[in-house]
Amino acid sequence: MTDLPSPYLLFLGDTRNETYAKTAFGLRDWAPETVIGEYAMPEATVTLGLERLTPAEAASRGARALLLGIAPVGGAIPAHWLSELVAALEAGLDIVAGLHQRLADIPELAATARRLGRTLHDVRHPTVSFSTGTGLPRMGKRLLTVGTDCALGKKYTALAIAKRWRALGGNADFRATGQTGIMIAGHGVAIDAVVADFIAGAAEWLSPANSADHWDIIEGQGSLYHPAFAGVTLGLLHGAQPDLFVLCHDPTRGTIYGYPHIPMPDLADAIALYEQLGRLTNPAIACAGISINSSKMSDPERQDWMARTSDRLGLPVADPLRDGVDAFIQRMQTVTA
Amino acid sequence: MTDLPSPYLLFLGDTRNETYAKTAFGLRDWAPETVIGEYAMPEATVTLGLERLTPAEAASRGARALLLGIAPVGGAIPAHWLSELVAALEAGLDIVAGLHQRLADIPELAATARRLGRTLHDVRHPTVSFSTGTGLPRMGKRLLTVGTDCALGKKYTALAIAKRWRALGGNADFRATGQTGIMIAGHGVAIDAVVADFIAGAAEWLSPANSADHWDIIEGQGSLYHPAFAGVTLGLLHGAQPDLFVLCHDPTRGTIYGYPHIPMPDLADAIALYEQLGRLTNPAIACAGISINSSKMSDPERQDWMARTSDRLGLPVADPLRDGVDAFIQRMQTVTA
Repeated sequence: MTDLPSPYLLFLGDTRNETYAKTAFGLRDWAPETVIGEYAMPEATVTLGLERLTPAEAASRGARALLLGIAPVGGAIPAHWLSELVAALEAGLDIVAGLHQRLADIPELAATARRLGRTLHDVRHPTVSFSTGTGLPRMGKRLLTVGTDCALGKKYTALAIAKRWRALGGNADFRATGQTGIMIAGHGVAIDAVVADFIAGAAEWLSPANSADHWDIIEGQGSLYHPAFAGVTLGLLHGAQPDLFVLCHDPTRGTIYGYPHIPMPDLADAIALYEQLGRLTNPAIACAGISINSSKMSDPERQDWMARTSDRLGLPVADPLRDGVDAFIQRMQTVTA
Repeated sequence: MTDLPSPYLLFLGDTRNETYAKTAFGLRDWAPETVIGEYAMPEATVTLGLERLTPAEAASRGARALLLGIAPVGGAIPAHWLSELVAALEAGLDIVAGLHQRLADIPELAATARRLGRTLHDVRHPTVSFSTGTGLPRMGKRLLTVGTDCALGKKYTALAIAKRWRALGGNADFRATGQTGIMIAGHGVAIDAVVADFIAGAAEWLSPANSADHWDIIEGQGSLYHPAFAGVTLGLLHGAQPDLFVLCHDPTRGTIYGYPHIPMPDLADAIALYEQLGRLTNPAIACAGISINSSKMSDPERQDWMARTSDRLGLPVADPLRDGVDAFIQRMQTVTA
């Protein structure tokens, strides 16, 4: 995999809402060594608390690219950002983005980049030609984060586990499958942008054979219970061939986010289904525990829910933000031993 | 959906092996009204038994396109076919192909087509921008053919059911999801060539709301038990929201074709899994029966297998080629009533 050109200057556009700047916050929190500073238009109110630098200042301090750390409303680059992006190219920076719209499809950007010899990195658009999946076992261990739904902590959980495993002296790589994860890791595959025939093959490519004590901690996508994205989830599960999976869940969500007609599954059913389907390519697949996002629960409520759920399922339950991930790490140690 | 420009002249290249000419045979058998004749290079030994016409002769009889009815070995157009394809464009025909390689990516063909105002139709490459799936119920009835594996009769079974339902006076459309099916129907979506995020959405688009007595008979792809393509199968299942599915199976296959390390599932387990996963978007999903490819079985062997299997599962079992599809039609009548 070709690595993205870090370190970055993080671009915040004219954003006034932190939720649109998730990518920038993710980079700051998970890959601070790849970040030189932030840059925003005068109208922006969001800040990462980093040093504010112009593209020219950042370039003089070693920045190699301007990274779009915000999701524009509607997914397309607003016209009034264009002059900023052109100025960054002129200051000597590449541009990195993870949008559905390709930077290279914007004529003014494409022409400027060509003239100056800069590269536009569209991380959502795979440049590799993948093979179809083989289903053959390969060396090394793998853990996949899966979910009852989208947007409930699969990336965060995977990053936290990889970081903790390494901090304990272990051998692990975070494997990114979404745009923010790819920017944090510097490489990866936007699995939902792969042509359908190659989902499992791309997941095999992303987590290749490795030494017996090595763990790939693979960022999950979607959910087997999601009416739009379950196919992506299943292809990723088959290609990742995980030895362990962590099931991510938000106890306060009653239905699939954005799909009020689709109820949330029971956790025991969900674990059984991920195990059943995962067995096709890894008969030893097992659940390492439940990772929850408990940000909307009071402390007594959350303690009670965790105790009851752990009891019922016979598995550890933890909110990585509050409890860390050692409960899952212990399961990994059992598999490695 | 824009229809393909039929009637066609079927191109057989220099093919010497009938198995490479499946698409041509499919067109001849299932859409004879769209076929004007066949055309092959002198080296070819395969024939469809149709009148042999040059592109110019076919054009003068009303043909609108040369259709590549063969799969070239390796998937790419051999260089020595090029002059034949150029000659067809010059004779006034479009070209229709269903290959991974795009006709439009071959400079000589693209330039000739542009110069003459002809169109190159790459049916494997969707030209529509799909939305993500909604999972919302819609009017009309749907039947999806699914399988324990690839290449065991899902297209044939769907075509036979749609034809029989119409012959009995019913209202039905065959919905194509693969290249040969698309050529037969004149339209459809190569579902395995859709970007992963949009598999279910493309399946919803392909089988839209319709009158209450109308059946979409949807061609299945892959298998939930296929280590490379199960994601495609699940997305198609969720988007198709079938009321009924027919499970296609080859009783003589012990492992997934090309994957000797992946055993064939038990039929009762497979039915239960398709029902369980299909319920997410259609709680009323049910199995209409088992469609078998029994071409490698003796007659007593096949009769015995069918009787035992039908008994065990409580479902009709039929080989559409030998037994027709009335057993499945009866189940559809129950749903309609």
